[in-house]
Order: sequence, then structure tokens, then C-alpha cells
Amino acid sequence: MKKRIGVLLSGRGSNFEALAESAAAGRIPNAEIAIVVSNRENAPGIERARARETEALVIPSKGLEREAYDRLVAAALEEKKVDLVCLAGYMRLLSPYFVAAFRNRILNIHPSLLPAFPGLEAQRQALEHGAKFSGCTVHFVDENLDAGPIVLQAVVPIKDDDTPETLSERILREEHRIYTEAVRIVLEGRYRIENRRVMILPEKVSEKR
Amino acid sequence: MKKRIGVLLSGRGSNFEALAESAAAGRIPNAEIAIVVSNRENAPGIERARARETEALVIPSKGLEREAYDRLVAAALEEKKVDLVCLAGYMRLLSPYFVAAFRNRILNIHPSLLPAFPGLEAQRQALEHGAKFSGCTVHFVDENLDAGPIVLQAVVPIKDDDTPETLSERILREEHRIYTEAVRIVLEGRYRIENRRVMILPEKVSEKR
Repeated sequence: MKKRIGVLLSGRGSNFEALAESAAAGRIPNAEIAIVVSNRENAPGIERARARETEALVIPSKGLEREAYDRLVAAALEEKKVDLVCLAGYMRLLSPYFVAAFRNRILNIHPSLLPAFPGLEAQRQALEHGAKFSGCTVHFVDENLDAGPIVLQAVVPIKDDDTPETLSERILREEHRIYTEAVRIVLEGRYRIENRRVMILPEKVSEKR
Repeated sequence: MKKRIGVLLSGRGSNFEALAESAAAGRIPNAEIAIVVSNRENAPGIERARARETEALVIPSKGLEREAYDRLVAAALEEKKVDLVCLAGYMRLLSPYFVAAFRNRILNIHPSLLPAFPGLEAQRQALEHGAKFSGCTVHFVDENLDAGPIVLQAVVPIKDDDTPETLSERILREEHRIYTEAVRIVLEGRYRIENRRVMILPEKVSEKR
């Protein structure tokens, strides 16, 4: 049976589209996006999901406490028997309840080399700090912002004439690449966690199992 | 006349030796190490300096307040008419007095991609955090720890079987390379600072001046 991915987003969801295309093209073998959930009604990612005939659900968070909201989202994902939750520009911290419900089954992508430049506008932060390299990070998600064990990172050089827009664009290409790779690794169980270090196991070892 | 570099160190001073060799070999043209100062009597870097017939001074910091100590060091550097101060494993924060006395003329090298992993044992911090890339940073020094505008950085991938020692060794090779390059750039005035961003100017532009 195909592995089922649930995507949470709040905006355009370009990483959702990258994952959907990777699954369709077999770069993430034997997997599909089972559902997309947005906390924002007007998130363009919702329309994009529907255009791909992927089920897309808006669950507005207004007026709900964090855990009450997360219970609604978790129920929607569990009903779809989701194996892995991928955050793609999801602008909410997850509650301990949600993290426990999907322990080691939630991934996020962040546009910096964490632990540098967590939070919003990471590309602008990197530029304004004068860093010479930035990049992106796929990590397991815990209760803290942009924390959790790191699965993959990619490095992107910063140019003197970069703006937040040009840098974001170059980082985004790497985001799509490593998010696909990380989802594949995690769905195949091809990793081992020691404290916070995620060791990637070679493909052959996993095929032998 | 040759540009004069003063080196401050507290330990073995491998970056002092790298700079001394780069100056001797012309990779830092028209420059020399005018003096090495250590705050620790038993710093191996002192012996290494003397073996190179470089003047080496121990100024013990014991019992002195930060600024009082820094005034002694600054006086020693000024007596030698130092153009640039290079920290090479110097285990002290500089006082505002010292920073003002050598405004934009103090460089440090740190074994991480700052702002990630400042402080002691940066290589071990990177490993234990599970980062997939680390590296090193040459930056101008201000009153804060491992802060100040970044001149150059280099990236070093972290391997699953790295120990703090193997990672430190690979980073150290990059440290020697970029410290040499950064000292050359700064001595040639081949940079421009905008807020915290250090823009490197091409060599040709500087030759035309």
C-alpha cells in the first residue's frame, strides 16, 4: 500500500507542490499526498491542492486554543491514515498533544541552516546578519520553534548583491530537493537517531532488511 | 613599508603559524607578524613564535581588571605600530577600550558558521546539535562574544562518523585558508561595510585606486 502523507500549510505551499510532484514522478516511491490542511481559508495552497485533485481541508483556528485546534487537525489526519505529516509553510507552533500523536512522524522545512536564523524571514535575517552562506534544513518537529533533530541540510552561498527575494528563490530550489529526499528517507525508515543526531543509513542496507 | 600584524593567543596558536607562513610565502603580500602576545605563560604559541624569531610577549592577566589588562596589551601593540590585530585562540573578551583603540582593525576566527555555535567547543556543539554542515568564520571583533561583521566563511560537511577531533581537523584546514585570505583583504582595504554586511571588492578595483 502507498505511504500516505498529510501536508499542513498556511500559504502558497510551494513545498507541498514539490512533494506532490516528487510522489507523482516516483522520486518518493510508493507514496501519495493523502490530504492537505490549512489553518487559513485564503491559503493559495488549498486551491493548488484541489487543482491536483488532492483533498484539501480548511480548519480555521480562530477562537480555538492551541490543543483544541490541534485535536481537530490530528483527527482529520488520522481519519486519512496518514503515515507522515509534512509542514509546508505552516505558521503555527504544534502543541505537545500533536507532537506526541505523531512522534517522529512530523517533518518541517526551514529556509536557513538551523540553528542559525530560526523564525520568520530567515532569508532576510541571514542577509542582514551578513552571513556568507545560508541554506535550508529539514528537521523532525517538536514543541519548540524550528528545533528538533535535523534530517538533511543544504548550503546556499549568499552573494553581495542578493536581496531577500533572490536569496529566497535560490534557497527554495534546494528546499524542494532536500524535502523530497528527506521524506523518502523517513518513509523508508532509512535513519537512526542518536540523541539529536540523525544518521542516514545507506539505501542498500535498507533494501536488505 | 610592510603592514604589521599583531597576534593575540592563549594556546597553541595554529592560526598564528598559518598567518606567519602565509606572510612569509607572499600569500599575504607585504606583511609580517610584528608581535605575538599571550595572556598565558605556558601557551605553546609563544614558543612557536620564538622559534620563528618573532617577538613574543607574555602579559599575564592575573589580578587585573579587563580594561587595565587591555591597556597593557594595546600599549604593546601600539609600540610595535601594529596595523591589524589577529586573534588566534585568544580566550578573553575584549574591553570596549580595546575595541575602540583598534576600531575595525581586529579580526577573529571561529570554528563554526556564525551565528550558529558561538563560544567554546563549537565543533562539539555542532556535532551534538546534529548539524549536517559547519565551518568557520573570520569576523571583525566587537565587545560581544563571536559577534561583529563577517568577512569570510567556509563550509565543512559533517560526517556521520565524525568526532569533535576529526571535525576540528577538517575545519582547521579551512580556518588557515580563509584567515589568510581575510587578512589579505582587510590589509588591502578591499572591502566595504554596510550595516553588518561586509562586501568584498574585486582585486582589480583595488589595484586601480
